[in-house]
Amino acid sequence: MRITSGPLDHIRCPRDVHDLNDDQIRPLCAQIRASLVEFGKRHGGHVGSNLAVVELTVALHRVFDSPRDAIIFDVSHQSYTHKMLTGRAAAFLDPRHYDQVTGFTNPAESEHDMFALGHTGTSISLACGMAKARDMGAVPDGGAGSGSIIAVIGDGALSSGVALEGLSDAAEQGGNLIVIVNDNEMSIAENHGGLYRGLARLRESDGRAEPNIFTALGMDYRYVEKGNDVDVLIEELTRIRDIDHPIVLHIHTTKGLGLDEEDARHGVVPGRHEFNHWQNPFCDEDAPVGSRKTYGALAMAQLERRFPDEPGLVVISPATARSNGITPGFRARAGAHYVDTAICEDHAAAYAAGIAKAGGTPVLATSATFFQRAYDQIIEELALNGLPATLLVFAAGISGTDHTHSGSLDTAMLATIPAMSYLAPSSSTDFLEMLDWSTRSRAHGTVAIRVPGERILAYERGVGDGTGAGETDAEDRRGVDEVTMETASLRGAGDSIPVDEATRENPYGRYRIDRQGSQVALMGLGDMYPVALETARSLERLTGGAVRPTVVDPRQCSGIDAGTLDGLAATHRLVVTLEDGQVDGGWGERIASYVTSMDRPGSHGPHDAQPQVICLGAGKEFTNRIPLPDLERRYGLTPDAVARRVVKALSLG
Amino acid sequence: MRITSGPLDHIRCPRDVHDLNDDQIRPLCAQIRASLVEFGKRHGGHVGSNLAVVELTVALHRVFDSPRDAIIFDVSHQSYTHKMLTGRAAAFLDPRHYDQVTGFTNPAESEHDMFALGHTGTSISLACGMAKARDMGAVPDGGAGSGSIIAVIGDGALSSGVALEGLSDAAEQGGNLIVIVNDNEMSIAENHGGLYRGLARLRESDGRAEPNIFTALGMDYRYVEKGNDVDVLIEELTRIRDIDHPIVLHIHTTKGLGLDEEDARHGVVPGRHEFNHWQNPFCDEDAPVGSRKTYGALAMAQLERRFPDEPGLVVISPATARSNGITPGFRARAGAHYVDTAICEDHAAAYAAGIAKAGGTPVLATSATFFQRAYDQIIEELALNGLPATLLVFAAGISGTDHTHSGSLDTAMLATIPAMSYLAPSSSTDFLEMLDWSTRSRAHGTVAIRVPGERILAYERGVGDGTGAGETDAEDRRGVDEVTMETASLRGAGDSIPVDEATRENPYGRYRIDRQGSQVALMGLGDMYPVALETARSLERLTGGAVRPTVVDPRQCSGIDAGTLDGLAATHRLVVTLEDGQVDGGWGERIASYVTSMDRPGSHGPHDAQPQVICLGAGKEFTNRIPLPDLERRYGLTPDAVARRVVKALSLG
Repeated sequence: MRITSGPLDHIRCPRDVHDLNDDQIRPLCAQIRASLVEFGKRHGGHVGSNLAVVELTVALHRVFDSPRDAIIFDVSHQSYTHKMLTGRAAAFLDPRHYDQVTGFTNPAESEHDMFALGHTGTSISLACGMAKARDMGAVPDGGAGSGSIIAVIGDGALSSGVALEGLSDAAEQGGNLIVIVNDNEMSIAENHGGLYRGLARLRESDGRAEPNIFTALGMDYRYVEKGNDVDVLIEELTRIRDIDHPIVLHIHTTKGLGLDEEDARHGVVPGRHEFNHWQNPFCDEDAPVGSRKTYGALAMAQLERRFPDEPGLVVISPATARSNGITPGFRARAGAHYVDTAICEDHAAAYAAGIAKAGGTPVLATSATFFQRAYDQIIEELALNGLPATLLVFAAGISGTDHTHSGSLDTAMLATIPAMSYLAPSSSTDFLEMLDWSTRSRAHGTVAIRVPGERILAYERGVGDGTGAGETDAEDRRGVDEVTMETASLRGAGDSIPVDEATRENPYGRYRIDRQGSQVALMGLGDMYPVALETARSLERLTGGAVRPTVVDPRQCSGIDAGTLDGLAATHRLVVTLEDGQVDGGWGERIASYVTSMDRPGSHGPHDAQPQVICLGAGKEFTNRIPLPDLERRYGLTPDAVARRVVKALSLG
Repeated sequence: MRITSGPLDHIRCPRDVHDLNDDQIRPLCAQIRASLVEFGKRHGGHVGSNLAVVELTVALHRVFDSPRDAIIFDVSHQSYTHKMLTGRAAAFLDPRHYDQVTGFTNPAESEHDMFALGHTGTSISLACGMAKARDMGAVPDGGAGSGSIIAVIGDGALSSGVALEGLSDAAEQGGNLIVIVNDNEMSIAENHGGLYRGLARLRESDGRAEPNIFTALGMDYRYVEKGNDVDVLIEELTRIRDIDHPIVLHIHTTKGLGLDEEDARHGVVPGRHEFNHWQNPFCDEDAPVGSRKTYGALAMAQLERRFPDEPGLVVISPATARSNGITPGFRARAGAHYVDTAICEDHAAAYAAGIAKAGGTPVLATSATFFQRAYDQIIEELALNGLPATLLVFAAGISGTDHTHSGSLDTAMLATIPAMSYLAPSSSTDFLEMLDWSTRSRAHGTVAIRVPGERILAYERGVGDGTGAGETDAEDRRGVDEVTMETASLRGAGDSIPVDEATRENPYGRYRIDRQGSQVALMGLGDMYPVALETARSLERLTGGAVRPTVVDPRQCSGIDAGTLDGLAATHRLVVTLEDGQVDGGWGERIASYVTSMDRPGSHGPHDAQPQVICLGAGKEFTNRIPLPDLERRYGLTPDAVARRVVKALSLG
């Protein structure tokens, strides 16, 4: 049940592209484009950027000989056409086969995919390394990467420092290396930074304007205005195929080229339009808004009210605003209180440090996986300098996402850095109070806040009045106030924590004991707190009320509340830590280590009765698009699984 | 007992520089330069870069009004003159006061120091953030940073991606922001990358050549050839002091200007010369070579022997080669087998991934603190892609260094990443065998190796024939083979581990039990292994032989050897983990969590006797230039302290 037919039906591998007659190339592009447009409507994805590179990708596979010639797609979400030409067309043509391949390159899928990639800007460095190995004679003749090495990188990814580092080093390394800059005038949202004014001048001057960022970094350079003309691209690529030195081929393309009127009715239009970066399938448009957008919008609404009175309050988002509920409407109203730095988390974190140093109040928002990029700046410029910046960490913990976007290392990464706090709210109320504290007080260092995820949202919707269930993704097109009104029903959940002025330095140092029970203490960090509550109910049911667990909301994972933990250890036989990040290097291990050690004040000698500690959380592995419920089962994180484990551990089962 | 006299004697704060007559400015510069040269000879430090910016710094404090005008020194090791002009001259003039201030800026020392910095490239982002807060009206009039914001950055730091990100965003942010590029034609070692060809063209053309990397990123630009002429600098700075938009002032300076013949006899000469980046005091030249250079040179010697037969074997160093024993002689002989990427760890790690993908064998060498920069690329491009690259992690764990260069987060950072190994050799023999395994086999993912530190070196020198004691830093000027001969005496230390072909995938998965004892198991990771051995002796002595500890060399910290640990747990009352990295998020917690949990195969129910676990290691804090022995005492990591704790825990004391 393929949704299109044409030359693509006979393409099994790049060799088949070589074998086509010249007159089949344009029909091939047309079929691919039509298929992608349909795919977007039915399945969704990074369709806009893929539509920009249909002709480029066909030209690459027409001119080059993959995998002898290695093509590396930066961030790799623009690789759909590449996948269609390398044996995976069915996954984009036939709804029955949708999702049989991922939206990113992956060597496990095909020998034509060089790397599994999902973070921007590294393709040039990777290409430079492959070229080096080839030039050293380490690649067998005819083997993958023994020919030309090509990196395909979008204009939006050029703001990543690593891309600029890569260009500079590539220029020095020498040898055949082709960097194709796919300039569709668009990042995830708008492009930001002086670099983009230069790209615009190059486009306007047919590549002749100075200064030229590419030649400034030492690269050779060619410009192609007609970046969606497959014949022109084939000619240009043929010309430079066997080049003996690194070159940038700067091509001008149109993001979302081919989107139609039906798409437009759903908000997706060709060209520079943010909604066209990530397209939801039309059938999903009535799906409830997820936790990132919900809690992000709540946070922005709270901050927005303060803008008139607090000149230094600045929200910083490195490009990924919309996914995190930072809507176009909010941004417009925020004016200078909102900064999109473009994709450059390193700069964004150091920039936040500068604002905080000067007395401002920076709030840096991005997902856990992208904070990995700013690890060094968070340690050095922020934490070590004791600067009161707030990091909003979205998509922390395990999820069903691609392996390159997992948030499961967030606690190992952020909770272990000295002189900063990592807070894990268990409700929208706590979340907003934590945000309020971290942005109003300067008497603390850097504070990271784990934005609540799907479990808390489901729990809050369940205990709320239920009106949240009908929310739609459409908030992007409405004002943030409306979203806030819609999500206001969440706000009754959780207990209010009065911020005691006396403990204002860190009111979250103490764990909150929500239910005082006996025998077993269930400590549920952040998103696992609803699971701890549910586990308690399961346990009572399973044991006919014989076990009434204590339930603890630790509220943060960057420090130990020794007093509370000593009390729990003295009065319980079993402590269970529940977290949805990786156990190794995570939070539970710290609890276990504290409880088992007699070397910290108040803990126990070897002959005292000590509670067991079971640390539950994510395994030490990269997981790729495994649905969250499956992961929860795999790691024993469902309430029933936890309850059964407790029963067994207490030797009741 | 000041070593010079002149106008500096009367400078207590920048206001005093303003009050000088014009004819005192050049004598002031001369006195500062003479003082720095003497300081270098007697104390050592980053003297070369400081000599380049004497006039610039005087001009800055003459023209601007610090701290109202905020000056941010990138990486900040060129801030000696700044310190001399802001009340801290004695620390550079009077040997009795040497070391009373650090070699980096630090707000704890002075209101004129904006940040504590030690990693390159972030000054522009920090300045951009301060300018933003000022422009938003968040800085009180007359307060620090309410006037001009100035970043001073060396040419060597421009290769850092974050610096280029900062330039691009600064250009967009607008407002007064002055970026002074101090171009002394020199990084830590040579400059590398196409970017530097552009800087050379700008120098040769008096700033007129295109392309211009600064204008390409959107910045305004001025060039000053006479970067060591204080009058010219004062004139230029006055001209742009109140500029209303961001500008780069590119000044050409001479690194090491003023070094004299005595310096030259000790190998330090003005201009582009690597030895002039970091100067040892002359009195230290006979001091023994430290662990980084010793083990680095051993590693390089082992790899060098293989270059003729292994074309894809490539050593990569992001600029910091010499500190890690990668001598100029080695580099010259290695040819294309050695790559200095310039200071850009992000690119270097992705570049290594490219080499490994293409079948080559990359060895990426830098210190733990700088690997922080590559955290995301190590996770995404290397580990997730399962690529067999080797990371040589120098200066891991605690040390007496500046807080910005601490290696104490190394285990929390690297041992928690899925699908990679972090090996911790306890001897030179193990180190070289691990390096051999990681670089010869491809049947493993990314392997990081913790290069042995001072404790292992002292231990090996102690058990060797003692000839090592007379080694000098002079190895940099000799061939690596000679160093290898000198350090060959170390190689008898430690047991040889025959690499069993059957376990080649990871022969280091099993802990090594070196001494089978009872009651207490001492597990010493890497550099703490000699401490475990010494603790065992102390314990026997303290208990009159009643306690004979088991001593375990875990050899790696990225996985648990469940079989061995189960055996230890079943037969010992106490397990002590010793590591010299941070306990929080580190290795010992994982051991504690394993032992206390009954949920892993082979472990124990709550009613079984369970051993206590004491996790010893570094506290969760940033420590600044606290001597290593003091830190060891603070954390109870000396053999005697550990022994006393064990005695107490076993209730023997």
